[in-house]
Amino acid sequence: MYNFEELRVKVETALQAVAWQRNPQSLYDPIQYTLKARGKRVRPVLTLLAANLWQSAIKSTHLNPALGLEIFHNFTLLHDDLMDNSSHRRGKETVHIKWDANQAILSGDAMQIVAFQYMLRCEDKYQRQIHDLFSLTALEVCEGQQLDVEFETRMNVSKQEYLEMIKLKTAVLLACSLKVGAITANAPEKDANLLYEFGINMGIGFQLQDDYLDVFGETKTFGKNVGTDIVNNKKTMLLITALEEANQSQRQELLYWLDGENVNPEEKIQAVTHIFKQLGIAELTHEMILQYHQNALACLKKVQLPEEKKVHLANFAQMLNQRNS
Amino acid sequence: MYNFEELRVKVETALQAVAWQRNPQSLYDPIQYTLKARGKRVRPVLTLLAANLWQSAIKSTHLNPALGLEIFHNFTLLHDDLMDNSSHRRGKETVHIKWDANQAILSGDAMQIVAFQYMLRCEDKYQRQIHDLFSLTALEVCEGQQLDVEFETRMNVSKQEYLEMIKLKTAVLLACSLKVGAITANAPEKDANLLYEFGINMGIGFQLQDDYLDVFGETKTFGKNVGTDIVNNKKTMLLITALEEANQSQRQELLYWLDGENVNPEEKIQAVTHIFKQLGIAELTHEMILQYHQNALACLKKVQLPEEKKVHLANFAQMLNQRNS
Repeated sequence: MYNFEELRVKVETALQAVAWQRNPQSLYDPIQYTLKARGKRVRPVLTLLAANLWQSAIKSTHLNPALGLEIFHNFTLLHDDLMDNSSHRRGKETVHIKWDANQAILSGDAMQIVAFQYMLRCEDKYQRQIHDLFSLTALEVCEGQQLDVEFETRMNVSKQEYLEMIKLKTAVLLACSLKVGAITANAPEKDANLLYEFGINMGIGFQLQDDYLDVFGETKTFGKNVGTDIVNNKKTMLLITALEEANQSQRQELLYWLDGENVNPEEKIQAVTHIFKQLGIAELTHEMILQYHQNALACLKKVQLPEEKKVHLANFAQMLNQRNS
Repeated sequence: MYNFEELRVKVETALQAVAWQRNPQSLYDPIQYTLKARGKRVRPVLTLLAANLWQSAIKSTHLNPALGLEIFHNFTLLHDDLMDNSSHRRGKETVHIKWDANQAILSGDAMQIVAFQYMLRCEDKYQRQIHDLFSLTALEVCEGQQLDVEFETRMNVSKQEYLEMIKLKTAVLLACSLKVGAITANAPEKDANLLYEFGINMGIGFQLQDDYLDVFGETKTFGKNVGTDIVNNKKTMLLITALEEANQSQRQELLYWLDGENVNPEEKIQAVTHIFKQLGIAELTHEMILQYHQNALACLKKVQLPEEKKVHLANFAQMLNQRNS
């Protein structure tokens, strides 16, 4: 069995070896550029970790759908960055900045098609199941993005609504990645579904950790600027919890900063973070993350395999939910 | 056997009956809005005409991929209109005008996913073939769009380059629509490929007719403003032929209008159309269209079926290449 670093190297090597040799090259350059920005490759690694639970050799029929998931994920980042008008990702200019908005739209569209192509490079007998699962998941990711945008202009987002949104925007693709791995390795249906649930819980924890790091992370290790969610009035679990827990004067101060136009961003970050600290939001968020992590592990435990087989997947989940970057 | 008007009604009815009941509805509203604008439904009708050559009953395994092709085509229009910043299509506001650019991007992305879902609602045994054909075709359509954009800033586009571009941008999807119909009806491979070639030739003729109508069509019947290609310096077959056929003074006049900034659009249309008339461009274009139409019919003739079966498809091709709207 491979550990996750070995699988990440396999994924990275395969991804960099993809030949983008169709014409016109100018359509494919932004795709290649996007995929060259080395990320953690979480989704394809999850696929291969899952497949590896039932099959010791990693075959192209596991690896290609894994690459499809990574290509799809990067396509969503490409279009999201355009919609958010983000200028940089992972230290590189985004596609609509380096090229232009139209190129980002068109190359993104092509990238989604390529993702579908890779997904179906599995064994014939798994085609329908993988296609149905992946296409539904891809739609759910769009639905999550739509909700995320709509929440920006709403002040009354509930915890439940927020959890549903991050489930769609983040968790379902991680869950799908695991289940695709299980399917391609001919896992029992019940176990494949348990891995899916493991992924949902891990994914929600993963996103909550992201929210946490945006406020309490170190800029250097996190790789993004701390406090951007606060500046942008993002309805994260931290803010939603703070609005629920705040007394009247704290609530008024929070609303002052949320409503305030022309406020100094640095002051806003400091003030809101201060209220978060008063309310113990870091600890409350940690508890929630821990709860989702434990739910995830409970699902993994039920998978009908010896515990020692599952250790890589458990470690990976631990790493994701305790990462500081 | 059904004639094309009967099949168009079947397609329209099925398309309007699609339940877009997923949440959030706001993601799906622009998709439904786009598909409510009634078009000719050329692509799904071609699929069903092709299927009907070998199977007399139209089943859901024919109809669903046909709808997938129409949904995909409308997705490309949605994103193209955004990239071109077109305000209207078929008399209705485009999605990025009625909503905004981000909504057009995201709902378009979801629409492409839905297209893939419908494509695979065929019999299991045809899944891989249909998926491979459709996904390659979808990429080719993106490649055609990329070339079309690049030609806008190039003065030296050759006829051959232009024909390759319109083949990718327009003809391959028509050809794919026919071949998908043939595949779902279990046609012999050789005949399915002949229908594909029929579609390529018909599709090039179809696009050349579009170029022709933009200059020589009647605004009322064409449904678009005449002369927009001229105003936008589109490298259509008419302009490329004119640049080839022009004598030195005609060429200089053409280049004057092409280079000229701040020229009056009405004057430009009149002047360029006048040169086209001097050079007999209408007749030359008609000859090309006729040639592609005959090539198409020659492919159809080779399909191993009684001639009377093919009459609806021959009529449809005739209608497309001789339409005035």
